Amino acid sequence: MRVLLVGAGGVGTAVTRIAARRAFFDLMVVADHDLARAEAAVAALGQDGSRFRAERVDAADESAVAGLLARHGCDVLFNATDPRFVMPLFRAARAAGVTYLDMAMSLSRPDPERPYEVCGVKLGDEQFAHTADWAEAGALALVGMGVEPGLSDVFARYAADELFDEIEEIGVRDGANLTVDGYDFAPSFSIWTTIEECLNPPVVHEAERGWFTTEPFSEPEVFDFPAGIGPVECVNVEHEEVLLVPRWVTAGRVTFKYGLGREFIETLRTLHLLGLDRTEPVTVPGADGPVAVSPRDVVAACLPDPATLGGRMHGKTCAGTWVRGTKDGAAREVYLYHVVDNEWSMAEYGCQAVVWQTAVNPVVALELLATGAWSGSGVLGPEAFPPRPFLDLLTAYGSPWGIREQ
Amino acid sequence: MRVLLVGAGGVGTAVTRIAARRAFFDLMVVADHDLARAEAAVAALGQDGSRFRAERVDAADESAVAGLLARHGCDVLFNATDPRFVMPLFRAARAAGVTYLDMAMSLSRPDPERPYEVCGVKLGDEQFAHTADWAEAGALALVGMGVEPGLSDVFARYAADELFDEIEEIGVRDGANLTVDGYDFAPSFSIWTTIEECLNPPVVHEAERGWFTTEPFSEPEVFDFPAGIGPVECVNVEHEEVLLVPRWVTAGRVTFKYGLGREFIETLRTLHLLGLDRTEPVTVPGADGPVAVSPRDVVAACLPDPATLGGRMHGKTCAGTWVRGTKDGAAREVYLYHVVDNEWSMAEYGCQAVVWQTAVNPVVALELLATGAWSGSGVLGPEAFPPRPFLDLLTAYGSPWGIREQ
Repeated sequence: MRVLLVGAGGVGTAVTRIAARRAFFDLMVVADHDLARAEAAVAALGQDGSRFRAERVDAADESAVAGLLARHGCDVLFNATDPRFVMPLFRAARAAGVTYLDMAMSLSRPDPERPYEVCGVKLGDEQFAHTADWAEAGALALVGMGVEPGLSDVFARYAADELFDEIEEIGVRDGANLTVDGYDFAPSFSIWTTIEECLNPPVVHEAERGWFTTEPFSEPEVFDFPAGIGPVECVNVEHEEVLLVPRWVTAGRVTFKYGLGREFIETLRTLHLLGLDRTEPVTVPGADGPVAVSPRDVVAACLPDPATLGGRMHGKTCAGTWVRGTKDGAAREVYLYHVVDNEWSMAEYGCQAVVWQTAVNPVVALELLATGAWSGSGVLGPEAFPPRPFLDLLTAYGSPWGIREQ
Repeated sequence: MRVLLVGAGGVGTAVTRIAARRAFFDLMVVADHDLARAEAAVAALGQDGSRFRAERVDAADESAVAGLLARHGCDVLFNATDPRFVMPLFRAARAAGVTYLDMAMSLSRPDPERPYEVCGVKLGDEQFAHTADWAEAGALALVGMGVEPGLSDVFARYAADELFDEIEEIGVRDGANLTVDGYDFAPSFSIWTTIEECLNPPVVHEAERGWFTTEPFSEPEVFDFPAGIGPVECVNVEHEEVLLVPRWVTAGRVTFKYGLGREFIETLRTLHLLGLDRTEPVTVPGADGPVAVSPRDVVAACLPDPATLGGRMHGKTCAGTWVRGTKDGAAREVYLYHVVDNEWSMAEYGCQAVVWQTAVNPVVALELLATGAWSGSGVLGPEAFPPRPFLDLLTAYGSPWGIREQ
């Protein structure tokens, strides 16, 4: 397998460190708009970097990406950029005739009239609109294959295949107890993206009603996370799993709740109340007269860069899927989960826990595609594939998952 | 009396409308850095504007201000600008040999080592340093003569003179139930100044300990405001009364608590936590490359301008002084207060309630100085003068005060 990895940010860099320890591929080209960043990722691998090459590329330039794929004879495009580049990279992979893999799907647009009741353009809609093209060409786009979406979807399929006869509800639940030395408030993930996720109308799926949206932060609940993380307040947010799981798994209800905790929820509410979440520019005094700036950029500029905080971070992050239903006529409720301790991921890989957890899952998926354990064509989510090989290989990567009967 | 009013913002404009109905002065020159604003204030008076003149002036230019005082033969400089201009205007008045009056005092600077324990430079310190010059010249600087400080200080002196034999505590308490149509969050006062007041270390005075500071938002209490406003959560903030009252009135303890309400306090806390209260610039993307902007300016730009909201505002604002002590051997507790209903101030004066309430008190004080009911020399607070004439004249202005025994 020859892979073009686009994006050498936190997650892309962690991908190279995880992949470098595995034999399933022959070449991984690491491409970024900032060549120095790609080169730094490769250089950091030292003598393990012989199968890696650094390149510069503009992810929005479809022909440049297709050219790079052809030049290196790649058969997979692995998208590790931010969601704005999903569509150009998805199209470039199709044009080049290679397999495509991403960790977040094409963006949503709220319904202009009733944003908190009905869906407008949903996450992934633009990609799923091309399902027939990919299927007819016998080509595969594996979408939403990070940790959430990604591992969480594999868990959902595993529950349906092996743990339940009938499923009433599937709820992805994400929580952490990460703290950062020296900061009272330091998000462990991009605040720009977190605002985008949390203030978009959350989407829910019900078997009888289909997809619908709610107000931001709806249906708060306290979820008790394993591995010592404990109870964290979770609320509905817009996330890919709710759009993916119902396409392949039958369940009465599918939700995604993010364990933001009370303080973080209130912080986001306040930013929204004050209009500081907006991306449309406001005019303020600058050194040489008035300047127009995006309030959300100013919020991000006031906070530390989460990718640089791994060394000062403590605690664990947990991704997982809670499932309620029946098995052999009895009620059953389980939480399938994966925990990463920041101390471990920093010591083992020099990567912050949230970033490492996002990166390990697509590498596992690539290895399954390379060995043929996973195969298919069309635009497919992780739950379209057999879950057991994935979960076994994740364990073999040294990062086991867990199950809690509740 | 011939008055130079510097500042034709919300409060300055309200001053002209209130003064226009009174006969105590011969001329009021309305000067602003923006001549159009001064002209608009005078033009709005219509046929009542014959005693008013508009001028342009830079409040920071002491010789220009002194020249303007001389040219119009003024005997009073009334400072209605923001606190940054207190010192140049205070000096200009002294240089010109005229009476000086303001509504906020020279700014504080926190102690660099222990900001939340001890005072650094206190509010008014720079002005009080000149007490001897003013006293020797037989000239008067009446400082802190708005509503708070101002009327609240008059109430403190009134309590000491007529209601109590001994005072244990004097607590200024300010609260409102103002709402603005169409906004979930719209401060009724400059957010820039509110952040400054609320995030500076609050100051407290105790007879045995002198002045000291606390953490922001300290000593929260729910105070029940009169006139239907009801209970509002109040916290310590830095305010002039705590620096003024103890100089002329004997009390065991003096505090100022602002009825910000829970939501507003949490909003300010969040802004502080995220560093969005800062005035030091951060660098963010602009249309033509990176630009440096002050986060606090961005917060202000995201919110509506409070001076423009009077027409959409509903509710009342209450300023007052709560006093606890003994009279004739018995315990006594009173709240002396002044309430303005926004509907009334808009209908009567076309002025928003908070702005009107700030403006009426210095006009009353000017009239007392014009008639000789108040006189003195040196740098004096409102509590240095007999309170009864002030309170009677305020009532005669159509805006009576109240007293609640509790």
